[in-house]
Amino acid sequence: MAFFVQKYGGTSVGSTERIKNVARRVAKFRAAGHDLVIVVSAMSGETNRLISLAKEIQPDPDPRELDVILSTGEQVSIGLLAMALHGLGIKAKSYTGSQVSITTDNAHTKARILKIDEDRIRADLAAGYVIIVAGFQGRDEAGNITTLGRGGSDTTAVALAAALKADECQIYTDVNGIYTTDPRVVPEARRLEAITFEEMLEMASLGSKVLQIRSVEFAGKYKVKLRVLSSFEEDGEGTLITFEENQNMEQPIISGIAFNRDESKITIVGVPDHPGIAYQILGPVADANIDVDMIIQNVGHDGTTDFSFTVNRNEYANTMKILEEQILPHIGAREVIGGNRIAKVSVIGVGMRSHAGIASKMFRVLAEEGINIQMIATSEIKVSVVVDEKYMELAVRVLHKAFELDQAK
Amino acid sequence: MAFFVQKYGGTSVGSTERIKNVARRVAKFRAAGHDLVIVVSAMSGETNRLISLAKEIQPDPDPRELDVILSTGEQVSIGLLAMALHGLGIKAKSYTGSQVSITTDNAHTKARILKIDEDRIRADLAAGYVIIVAGFQGRDEAGNITTLGRGGSDTTAVALAAALKADECQIYTDVNGIYTTDPRVVPEARRLEAITFEEMLEMASLGSKVLQIRSVEFAGKYKVKLRVLSSFEEDGEGTLITFEENQNMEQPIISGIAFNRDESKITIVGVPDHPGIAYQILGPVADANIDVDMIIQNVGHDGTTDFSFTVNRNEYANTMKILEEQILPHIGAREVIGGNRIAKVSVIGVGMRSHAGIASKMFRVLAEEGINIQMIATSEIKVSVVVDEKYMELAVRVLHKAFELDQAK
Repeated sequence: MAFFVQKYGGTSVGSTERIKNVARRVAKFRAAGHDLVIVVSAMSGETNRLISLAKEIQPDPDPRELDVILSTGEQVSIGLLAMALHGLGIKAKSYTGSQVSITTDNAHTKARILKIDEDRIRADLAAGYVIIVAGFQGRDEAGNITTLGRGGSDTTAVALAAALKADECQIYTDVNGIYTTDPRVVPEARRLEAITFEEMLEMASLGSKVLQIRSVEFAGKYKVKLRVLSSFEEDGEGTLITFEENQNMEQPIISGIAFNRDESKITIVGVPDHPGIAYQILGPVADANIDVDMIIQNVGHDGTTDFSFTVNRNEYANTMKILEEQILPHIGAREVIGGNRIAKVSVIGVGMRSHAGIASKMFRVLAEEGINIQMIATSEIKVSVVVDEKYMELAVRVLHKAFELDQAK
Repeated sequence: MAFFVQKYGGTSVGSTERIKNVARRVAKFRAAGHDLVIVVSAMSGETNRLISLAKEIQPDPDPRELDVILSTGEQVSIGLLAMALHGLGIKAKSYTGSQVSITTDNAHTKARILKIDEDRIRADLAAGYVIIVAGFQGRDEAGNITTLGRGGSDTTAVALAAALKADECQIYTDVNGIYTTDPRVVPEARRLEAITFEEMLEMASLGSKVLQIRSVEFAGKYKVKLRVLSSFEEDGEGTLITFEENQNMEQPIISGIAFNRDESKITIVGVPDHPGIAYQILGPVADANIDVDMIIQNVGHDGTTDFSFTVNRNEYANTMKILEEQILPHIGAREVIGGNRIAKVSVIGVGMRSHAGIASKMFRVLAEEGINIQMIATSEIKVSVVVDEKYMELAVRVLHKAFELDQAK
């Protein structure tokens, strides 16, 4: 008997038939005596439908009101799943994010969870209920409805697992685990039995869209055991995301190849090279709640330097506008060059720490295919390059093969 | 400059285009300097869509969870209307029933409002906002989401107008006022400029579906001036529902003819005629939250009597089940006769108080058309008869003419 927080995504609850399937799966766990808190997303398509409605009214809708509307998607799902469980004779009770007091900051449409009052859930669990919580949403201190951004239901699940000290947080998706890379790009990609949080963080942030990055950060921070499983497969093991490297296991050097084509790059050429310039550039961008991914500044000469960074492609126009209105007038740069048609490709693995030569091998493999590297960034466990978007799939395939990820260990 | 609570129904907010129209109307009132609290229903069709989803999961869904789902319909509307007002440059803020603390009892799917915390609304009004509140919903003391039943948005509007002491509660609908009867049945039906609460109560409860009866009761109790208007007509006067008979006005004897084909009748034959028998029969029915409309018990003979009552047709099967399981085994009645194919027709008017002969005129008119009267009930200001459903329209037409309702005063 254990205590699981399980999260079912939009595809898993995409129709009333699928919701009944989720209920049957939950019932099986319940029959085995487990305590369960279930987090659900909106039925697939619903969030987009609601966004379309909002945009019919206003192209750039007010974030507070958008959250009021978007949060209804998950609210419908929780009610339906509760009913489906009742239909199987299981005691179940649904809660919205507001009701269960998932308190967030007030950054509407991308709020962060501050705290969860677990008393109500604990009392209901003790009374034998399966608890169903609306993912993706919360309330700020003033009681306004907030949402956590796309994929926020994962974060809800992990935050609940952390607050309630669940044994495992199980994320049910439409894939059966984390792969060495996207099988649609490389058919030989293999499912990983386990992956470390650090690797997963890099995989997620770099575009393996199985889990929302914030949920993985959360899980790592609060030492929540996270498992990714398929909601369409019986008895799959999925991929366990562990918070420690398994010392007994021969660690593969590289765990996977991640990629992301949702990025755009911005380079400010000829920035005066003096202290505080990075903050002067990125401060206003951060204030606008725009996430910056790669940041690259090389050593300068002649008193100036070039400053590059990447942002999500959706934020490209907005970032350019902020640059032009709030930043460039003050820093006296030579020019700004932006580019939308780029992609980022990364090799990831904790084994890199103890193995030299990964980066140079990566660069050699790409060079052999004639792929020009536009930007490079490295961390302890990953090497990322920015390349022209059209080479992205080729780059992923040759790297996957070069690092022997297609071969079972 | 005045303070209005305005309510827009599902048809008025049935599409994003229509929501923009509502916003333009609200903007006009705002431009004239009025303070405004706007109550909206779910977009037309949405509540039915949600009920269908629920019934796909469970034919008889749990009321608590049904409320979780149903309340999302209005929640989408409030967000969209707030956005539409922003689009016109108007400060506006939306609130769900829970957020604005519309506290109800816990009778899910037909809850009653207990109290409203108006502080938040008052503060926002003072800060120059148009306040938009989700109709039809609230929260019980424990924080569970509740709904007020079909048409509950009217009740929300009136309750807000009462709590906030608004100058007028304006109910925008798809009709431009209250008519002497349904114009689809009698083309000669006329719009009434004013009607008393008592008359309106009888009109509403008897099937003139413009306003929810509970909202009229509420308005009468708290002396809220209520006006019914069309949301598709500019500058209409609608019908004012007054809480006093206008002493200066020559009161028409009869204000209207109401009818209702949503009823079914149940007669318990040969009930022992002893004290407490009515409570024994109707107690369990009331406990099941089933509204009983007409109740008729004639003088008995041979120690027994016949007891008849009518309930909404939707509750017929449920009521019969309660009768058979909980009531009949204890009271020793001879038999139960039920009927679904009936309709109720009523003539209504405060003038009846001072004019004799209305009932006998009604019975004579029906007799002349060969319409058999199955049940009769009277109050101070109305006479109702139950007839075979197939005669309903004929009865309404001949009564409308006989009482000269087609003639302008």
